[in-house]
Amino acid sequence: MPRYRLTIEYDGTRYAGWQRQAGPRSIQGAIEAAILGFCGETVTIQGAGRTDAGVHARGQVAHLDLSKTWAADTVRDALNAHLRMAGDDVAILEAAETAPDFDARFSALKRHYLYRIVCRPAPLVLEKNRAWLVRRALDAEAMHAAAQILVGRHDFTTFRSIQCQAKSPVRTLDRLDVARHPESGAIEIRASAQSFLHNQIRSFAGTLKLVGEGRWTAEDVASALAARDRKACGTVAPPEGLYFLSVDY
Amino acid sequence: MPRYRLTIEYDGTRYAGWQRQAGPRSIQGAIEAAILGFCGETVTIQGAGRTDAGVHARGQVAHLDLSKTWAADTVRDALNAHLRMAGDDVAILEAAETAPDFDARFSALKRHYLYRIVCRPAPLVLEKNRAWLVRRALDAEAMHAAAQILVGRHDFTTFRSIQCQAKSPVRTLDRLDVARHPESGAIEIRASAQSFLHNQIRSFAGTLKLVGEGRWTAEDVASALAARDRKACGTVAPPEGLYFLSVDY
Repeated sequence: MPRYRLTIEYDGTRYAGWQRQAGPRSIQGAIEAAILGFCGETVTIQGAGRTDAGVHARGQVAHLDLSKTWAADTVRDALNAHLRMAGDDVAILEAAETAPDFDARFSALKRHYLYRIVCRPAPLVLEKNRAWLVRRALDAEAMHAAAQILVGRHDFTTFRSIQCQAKSPVRTLDRLDVARHPESGAIEIRASAQSFLHNQIRSFAGTLKLVGEGRWTAEDVASALAARDRKACGTVAPPEGLYFLSVDY
Repeated sequence: MPRYRLTIEYDGTRYAGWQRQAGPRSIQGAIEAAILGFCGETVTIQGAGRTDAGVHARGQVAHLDLSKTWAADTVRDALNAHLRMAGDDVAILEAAETAPDFDARFSALKRHYLYRIVCRPAPLVLEKNRAWLVRRALDAEAMHAAAQILVGRHDFTTFRSIQCQAKSPVRTLDRLDVARHPESGAIEIRASAQSFLHNQIRSFAGTLKLVGEGRWTAEDVASALAARDRKACGTVAPPEGLYFLSVDY
């Protein structure tokens, strides 16, 4: 039974998120429907990370088993054809046959995310639903300095959703860099860790935005982290700025 | 009678182009309708360049005269509110009061455009309608070398639409650079000149794509230019890859 690894791009705007649900459209459900259309097999795919409604991916990874062996490029092209026919905002960037013990979720060593903020008075047009629009300038250097407080192994209770199902709120954050993009001027927050809690990056982004506005200091961020209390979180940034970039295995 | 200069972003996908026409939606018409909605004045705005259906702008410039003086930020915010209410994909990035002899079209010293090509087998999702999708890799270095043949003062009959209304086909092309974007991998063609002919940049992009595929050599580009014959043009690239970036005055 050959196992395939898919690398997936999606525009999360019109979806209820990655995970298949009864009712609303999901990315997982769209890909599973495309697999059924392609080869007639009803499979469950396993993704590297569950993204929320409105969150995008440039490199989500998933694995699936098929009963028949197909050329990997055929899997990619056939799934893309079916996704397109269904009007889905999902594309398979790459399909590859992989080892039978590869698991998109449990084999992941590190996950990389990007959060984008555009600061300007005018509404977004070319980047509508592709970034968080903040109508005032933010201090990217202050945001970066405050972000470093969050890097490392911590109890991130403050920065996870109360719906988060992870058993432990302790995670090791490997990277949280904030920089202004030299061309576009957008503020980019890059986060890397083996795994993240529910809403963790959006909670970071919302809190760091308060620092960028000068309303919070780095010390406020340290206090919020130390509080281990969801109520101490600044704000939660909206989903449209968040991109699941890639996974290291 | 105060004159205002607008800097404009738009997603050209759902428009028949910049120029107001009887019938189909135009960018110019959308902005003029917003002006009417804002202050009750029926004005004709003058743009720096007429873009075709599907072509985008990050920094189109236009001027207009109003009978009453308003704070420039009020003009910007009010027009954006009306554009948004009308469901338009147009945003006013900046409004500024300007000298009465400023003319967005005739005062322009240099216009800057970008043409984007994404090379990959998968359909575009996050950049749908934002780039030309080419399903094979292109040689950006060969494209850049061939592009240099086109820089300078030439008769560009080969590279203009047969509908082009300019009296002379002679233009001075100041810059035509081709490079792979270090982050996204997209091929970016940057063109600068005081003025361009109709379809000139899309004709360049389509022809350079043939060079990137190895189907045309730099010599073929030189021959096409020398032919001064529209039929010698390679192909015309689709509008969705083209962006009007900015104007120097």
